[in-house]
Amino acid sequence: MEDSTTAFLAAGDPLMQRTLIEGLPSARATMVDTIKFYIDGMPGELRETMGAADFVTVNESEAREIAGTPSIAKAARALLAGGPKGVIVKLGEYGAAFASAEDYFVAPGYPLEDVVDPTGAGDAFAGGFLGYLDSVDVVTPGAIRRAIIYGSTVASFDVEGFGPSRLLTLTRAEVEARYQEFRRLTHFEAGE
Amino acid sequence: MEDSTTAFLAAGDPLMQRTLIEGLPSARATMVDTIKFYIDGMPGELRETMGAADFVTVNESEAREIAGTPSIAKAARALLAGGPKGVIVKLGEYGAAFASAEDYFVAPGYPLEDVVDPTGAGDAFAGGFLGYLDSVDVVTPGAIRRAIIYGSTVASFDVEGFGPSRLLTLTRAEVEARYQEFRRLTHFEAGE
Repeated sequence: MEDSTTAFLAAGDPLMQRTLIEGLPSARATMVDTIKFYIDGMPGELRETMGAADFVTVNESEAREIAGTPSIAKAARALLAGGPKGVIVKLGEYGAAFASAEDYFVAPGYPLEDVVDPTGAGDAFAGGFLGYLDSVDVVTPGAIRRAIIYGSTVASFDVEGFGPSRLLTLTRAEVEARYQEFRRLTHFEAGE
Repeated sequence: MEDSTTAFLAAGDPLMQRTLIEGLPSARATMVDTIKFYIDGMPGELRETMGAADFVTVNESEAREIAGTPSIAKAARALLAGGPKGVIVKLGEYGAAFASAEDYFVAPGYPLEDVVDPTGAGDAFAGGFLGYLDSVDVVTPGAIRRAIIYGSTVASFDVEGFGPSRLLTLTRAEVEARYQEFRRLTHFEAGE
């Protein structure tokens, strides 16, 4: 644990999350998730924990509630002002938005034809995101964008099966192929 | 009217829409929009009109209702099977999805901080989309992707003001700048 370069603090007591982050001073990327229970019940502690993390990940309704605004962009920037290096707002089937001091990135959702079970999609996203950041030499804005697409890719596989079943058979080649498919689905040429 | 290379048939009686399409045999792009009133009341006529159009544009709930599926990708492909060359599913603040025989494209929404009035966003999209297609030499899949971003760009300006007020002062340079911003917001490098 002490040797990890990345750590995901899944939703839990924000004080406990902060203690864990403080125990990993050399981690290149810590990420904090949360749930409404802590947003409502421990807003001050949560704010402090988010400020101590490298990345904060929340879903759309949580972002709006914490920041008190209907605009996803405004909510992401408000959360960013609290201290983390980057904020990821998960938009479910619509993808994700990312804000940092240097960057703003919007990733659409992968166009799945059949969603079997959305359970665990957020944790799968975190795994793909941090796993990619763990593999790069330097965490640049470009690397973070790629990490978001890897996270979205792993999450898109997760929801294709019940629980984590699809992830148990997932291969690196399948992940790479869908990452490239994400690029083909989203890129367009310069205008005129 | 007979000399137009593009035509937008805003939501209306599908029989009337079809008569107008048939009166423009040399148009390079006709686009049909509709509303729940016609989806529920004239489904057969609407299906025939959509099949006669080059492009069909519907919002997410309309797509799901017409196609009878919760999957946006599946709904877009089901509408495509009815005969149009391309189907655009408008996702509001989350962007748009596009399906044709050759392509599938997902465009995220432009991250606006303040939405003043969403009235007319769909019509603004149609104007930007068809206006761009009118300007190109050949309607290729790449041109359609660019047209979707131009449509999304014009729609994003529209919702920044009441009614069409923002569009009345909109300049070509502003449109081009936001189109490029859309690219910066969405593109990412190949993985590894």
